[in-house]
Amino acid sequence: MFSAADTAFMAQAIRQAELGRYTTSPNPNVGAVLVKDGAVIGCGYHKQAGGPHAEVFALREAGTAAKGATCYVTLEPCSHFGRTPPCAEALIAAGVARVVVAMQDPNPQVAGRGVAMLRAAGITVEIGLLETQARAVNPGFLSRMERQRPYVQLKLAASLDGRTALANGDSKWLTGDAARADVQHYRAQSCAVLSTATTVMADNARLNLRAEQLLRNVTTLENGVLRQPKRVILDRNGTLDGKMAIFDDGGEVLLCVSKLENSRQLPNIARQIHCPLDNNAQFDLPVLLEHLAVRENINTLWVEAGATLAGTLLQLQLVDELIVYIAPKLLGNTAQPLAVLPQFSALAAVPQLSWTDVRMVGQDLRLTALLT
Amino acid sequence: MFSAADTAFMAQAIRQAELGRYTTSPNPNVGAVLVKDGAVIGCGYHKQAGGPHAEVFALREAGTAAKGATCYVTLEPCSHFGRTPPCAEALIAAGVARVVVAMQDPNPQVAGRGVAMLRAAGITVEIGLLETQARAVNPGFLSRMERQRPYVQLKLAASLDGRTALANGDSKWLTGDAARADVQHYRAQSCAVLSTATTVMADNARLNLRAEQLLRNVTTLENGVLRQPKRVILDRNGTLDGKMAIFDDGGEVLLCVSKLENSRQLPNIARQIHCPLDNNAQFDLPVLLEHLAVRENINTLWVEAGATLAGTLLQLQLVDELIVYIAPKLLGNTAQPLAVLPQFSALAAVPQLSWTDVRMVGQDLRLTALLT
Repeated sequence: MFSAADTAFMAQAIRQAELGRYTTSPNPNVGAVLVKDGAVIGCGYHKQAGGPHAEVFALREAGTAAKGATCYVTLEPCSHFGRTPPCAEALIAAGVARVVVAMQDPNPQVAGRGVAMLRAAGITVEIGLLETQARAVNPGFLSRMERQRPYVQLKLAASLDGRTALANGDSKWLTGDAARADVQHYRAQSCAVLSTATTVMADNARLNLRAEQLLRNVTTLENGVLRQPKRVILDRNGTLDGKMAIFDDGGEVLLCVSKLENSRQLPNIARQIHCPLDNNAQFDLPVLLEHLAVRENINTLWVEAGATLAGTLLQLQLVDELIVYIAPKLLGNTAQPLAVLPQFSALAAVPQLSWTDVRMVGQDLRLTALLT
Repeated sequence: MFSAADTAFMAQAIRQAELGRYTTSPNPNVGAVLVKDGAVIGCGYHKQAGGPHAEVFALREAGTAAKGATCYVTLEPCSHFGRTPPCAEALIAAGVARVVVAMQDPNPQVAGRGVAMLRAAGITVEIGLLETQARAVNPGFLSRMERQRPYVQLKLAASLDGRTALANGDSKWLTGDAARADVQHYRAQSCAVLSTATTVMADNARLNLRAEQLLRNVTTLENGVLRQPKRVILDRNGTLDGKMAIFDDGGEVLLCVSKLENSRQLPNIARQIHCPLDNNAQFDLPVLLEHLAVRENINTLWVEAGATLAGTLLQLQLVDELIVYIAPKLLGNTAQPLAVLPQFSALAAVPQLSWTDVRMVGQDLRLTALLT
């Protein structure tokens, strides 16, 4: 059904989609390529919510040549008026003859209606080319749409023997400059960073994106500035000091509290969100993650926290991916642990991973793994 | 001084030397290539102590063509009668015109005398081509000769959070079949395995080489059998049960005791060696390692032990290389540590490593590092 040329053009559309990784949230990353007589006549990607969709950029580039062309698009064209008119209509209006779609849009506002609209207009529509690869471009958007929670990446940093700090708390600097810069790139791709008031207070951490630390090119928003991740801070008792550096700059700070305090004086950058407690008098993290996805449109959540929150998220199976920097050091058995977990009685019961990548980042190793 | 052709022929000699890695101990790995008019006319490597040296194999292959040839050899030709006549004499007798040597022999019985003998016979001798690479073939022999202790490789296996077993001791199987087979290949290259009576008793461990578990080709001794590493077992109180499986087969078992018990009944495969205690009433490990090198001709020592011995060796800076298998699991903060070390007060004081290799071994990762 699909030719080798079809596959190559869809791969090109996927590479287009990836260009939006630093800017499109909460929208999905989408790329489109218009082809006529075997030649690309237009391409584009969705850069920012509110701006044109990928198909529109491709159609603009192609102009009248779009008539009779094939459009390769990584996600089903939209059928509804959102902040922009429906792309399906634009493709019909341009006289496109065939549309190849990598995957149907899981957004309930689309979910097959875009394809139906195209077919009703007599356009040949084929679905499913490089679907796995197309899904991989949007782990966060798909997680929010399909699971009503963000795609959760847990960042850890430890010595070879799995220790994050000495007994006295010394951890500066366990990992090197390159690893810390690498973290900036993950923050740049994330909708929000999750941490705790304890961590913020201990290090006076900003958890923002710092342009001067970025080692590779990160695309900016249309207004020329970097998209800053929101900071979601677990602040159960509402005691985070308003003078901390986290309130100075960066994305919005969402203070997750167990009880909203309307009288609390907060910096303009901050806002309280309410999260119920669970039976252990801890934040009900599944409820929080659902809230972040459904109410706050958070696709991807990047967790930088201590061993307690890390362990709780792991134990609740709320982590999708681990990113672990291993410093070339041994801290010994008295140093602090990587993750606080229950005492297991059998190896079969422990959290299981599968490695997905390993590479040197400066003097350190970076391991990535999926939870299985 | 050296041409590109010289370098290529020496590289070939080094590859020859590596062929002996499973059999030559306690002798060094040596390779030789004889070249005349730009063509290789003979090559060989030293396979086993007592057998012919590399140069002899190369000369045999070349026959009378050796007259006027150049010999590339990874280690200075020997000048003394050991179990075989001196190679320097054989090269002279064959009429070789030029000898290129990667490195001088640190063995005090040679140490320049081989080169001097060749030069006295009118042969052109050049030294130092690919010396670093040639040294890398013989870390154990060079350590024994230059430092009077074996090259020590410490094997560890842990979860991502640096834990070797659950609190209840369960560690079967933390790592997978492939990692355990990989360990067999390290044992195959080692003169001896170091462990403790505690470890042997806990697992009824044999610590031998098991042909059926080898995944890659391992060369055998001239008599067709695999060289088995000796097992050096710390058995301070001389209480290791003579019925344990370690005494059933494999290489010799050296029971390291603090007091020789002449009346002790031991299996034929076993022998006691005495090691003094240090000020902490623990084995004086530097003394033991010197003994193993100088008295037992152990070039390479492969350590498979628990967190206590591992930590002590690390703390005493007696480890040259770490080989660590990381299982894709998290065991949590109550599980058992990788290395027992003192409580450090600053990160600058902890053991520092530099990564040398990382790869997948089945489901696990294998990291290797040098102590720095």
